[in-house]
Amino acid sequence: MKCRVCGKPASLSLRAYNTALCADDFIAFLEKRVLQTIRRYKLINTGERPLVAVSGGKDSLALWTILNRLGFAADGMYIDLGIAEYSQTSYLKARAMADELNRRLFRFSIPKVFGKEVAELSRITRRPPCSLCGTVKRYAMNRVCVTEGYSVLLTGHNLDDEASALLGNILYWKEEYLWKKDVVLEGQGSSLAKKAKPFFLCSEREVAAYALLKGIDYVYEECPYAVGARTLVYKNVLNQIEEMSPATKIMFLKGYLKRLRSEPKREQATSCIACGYPTYTEKCNFCSLMDRVGGDQRFAVDTYDPAETRMEPGETRPDNHA
Amino acid sequence: MKCRVCGKPASLSLRAYNTALCADDFIAFLEKRVLQTIRRYKLINTGERPLVAVSGGKDSLALWTILNRLGFAADGMYIDLGIAEYSQTSYLKARAMADELNRRLFRFSIPKVFGKEVAELSRITRRPPCSLCGTVKRYAMNRVCVTEGYSVLLTGHNLDDEASALLGNILYWKEEYLWKKDVVLEGQGSSLAKKAKPFFLCSEREVAAYALLKGIDYVYEECPYAVGARTLVYKNVLNQIEEMSPATKIMFLKGYLKRLRSEPKREQATSCIACGYPTYTEKCNFCSLMDRVGGDQRFAVDTYDPAETRMEPGETRPDNHA
Repeated sequence: MKCRVCGKPASLSLRAYNTALCADDFIAFLEKRVLQTIRRYKLINTGERPLVAVSGGKDSLALWTILNRLGFAADGMYIDLGIAEYSQTSYLKARAMADELNRRLFRFSIPKVFGKEVAELSRITRRPPCSLCGTVKRYAMNRVCVTEGYSVLLTGHNLDDEASALLGNILYWKEEYLWKKDVVLEGQGSSLAKKAKPFFLCSEREVAAYALLKGIDYVYEECPYAVGARTLVYKNVLNQIEEMSPATKIMFLKGYLKRLRSEPKREQATSCIACGYPTYTEKCNFCSLMDRVGGDQRFAVDTYDPAETRMEPGETRPDNHA
Repeated sequence: MKCRVCGKPASLSLRAYNTALCADDFIAFLEKRVLQTIRRYKLINTGERPLVAVSGGKDSLALWTILNRLGFAADGMYIDLGIAEYSQTSYLKARAMADELNRRLFRFSIPKVFGKEVAELSRITRRPPCSLCGTVKRYAMNRVCVTEGYSVLLTGHNLDDEASALLGNILYWKEEYLWKKDVVLEGQGSSLAKKAKPFFLCSEREVAAYALLKGIDYVYEECPYAVGARTLVYKNVLNQIEEMSPATKIMFLKGYLKRLRSEPKREQATSCIACGYPTYTEKCNFCSLMDRVGGDQRFAVDTYDPAETRMEPGETRPDNHA
């Protein structure tokens, strides 16, 4: 199998595109594909400042890398869930990438703000950890965008993430979620940032190959709470169908986007009576959580800035970033 | 595992219903389920005469059996595709069931009417055999309903057939087909019969178990043209999801039906300029096919009536039903 571009031996066969590419041309291909997605769906317009949600996994680190290589000066934001080793390792990977890209990395720490880690919050509120984490992430990411002047929050959700979630929503016709997914969600006023997914049409395998070929050092483990058999089965069956009919996942999502445009627009958010940030209820989920479990109302976020913290060899990091 | 009803050893575990049943109670369960579907979705109203599309396979023969056991005086209709042994065997199975139920069986023969079997029609028209067969079946079944005074045509499509077809339509967002499936499609005027699927919510496994337990003698082979890898893969992946989350297939179809009610109604059919039967184009697909390949315009259907052809032991069937 030869690279379609240069004729050298191919490293990767891309059946959805009916092509095969060598490592270098694949890297160029994927970066171009991301740029096309950004342009076509207007994910980042001229003058918009992007912030990347960085978990330390392959998707978010690959995204952060690509954006900066494409010339988008994207900073990062990390949410510390307080899951002992996992959180520590993943933060270190994120910070190493901040160093490499020479970009700022914000961190919102659940244990610092709530005085408890996610597992404990989950016990107190009787909500699944992933649901809690989602509430906190959405809120904190948006609030940092607003207060720090970022216009668009970018997440590393890939084609497989989106297609499997969509399949789950369709199998059970969860109308309340079904028509809320999008490659880009516009912001609202000055308190709700735009959100976008540049990997919407890039498969998990493609992103993983990119991370591997670029030598990106990421956390291999999934979040211990996120190992959902259901999502894995959805991804697996979609890959079986993809195996028989290449490009099915892309067609599934593109067809969905087309259909989505004809669905009624979702309702506008109002302002939370406590914090003033967007909500669809009277008090936002984050403030309700704060009421329920107690916590530091000041919404502390720490910032790691490689430019300010250049280290000499052998020097160790200051404590607040350890 | 014990039968939920009688406490004897169970023959079948039904995870979608969180139950297990012995053979007799399963038979009663499935018949009741079909009756519920018929009542709930108004598949057969009082006074409506049903005709069953009979292929000789497990689904259609089980359906024909159940309808008669439930007290619906349903006759049958068979389409002879002219596929040598397959068609002959399947017609004999259908006729044996006509004898057992003492009901009439109509037969429309593609080779008799068109002078060619499906494979040849396919070559001439360059259309896939299944597409041709669909055109002929829909037309002939409806026309027999209209001319012979049947109000509703019932087909043996089961939960797996419907869910896999729906999945295929959704993965590629085939909007032109997506919103046309239904458990019941009302007729139109005097030339379009109502159509309904009493097994819409009964799985393939359940129908097969019913056929087995009732000792129904059916054609095991699939139609040689119908062996579609694609459908098999869809059925297979849906069963993998069902394995993890029982009742997914039922929820998928029920949710779809609910959603379907909010979609715009499909357009009304007009009358074919040649035969007068319903069409969405000027001339219906059947008449266009007739024009293209030639054929006997008289639309001949033969009728097998067990009441008229009771045989003495050793007597052979008259030739026209052989």
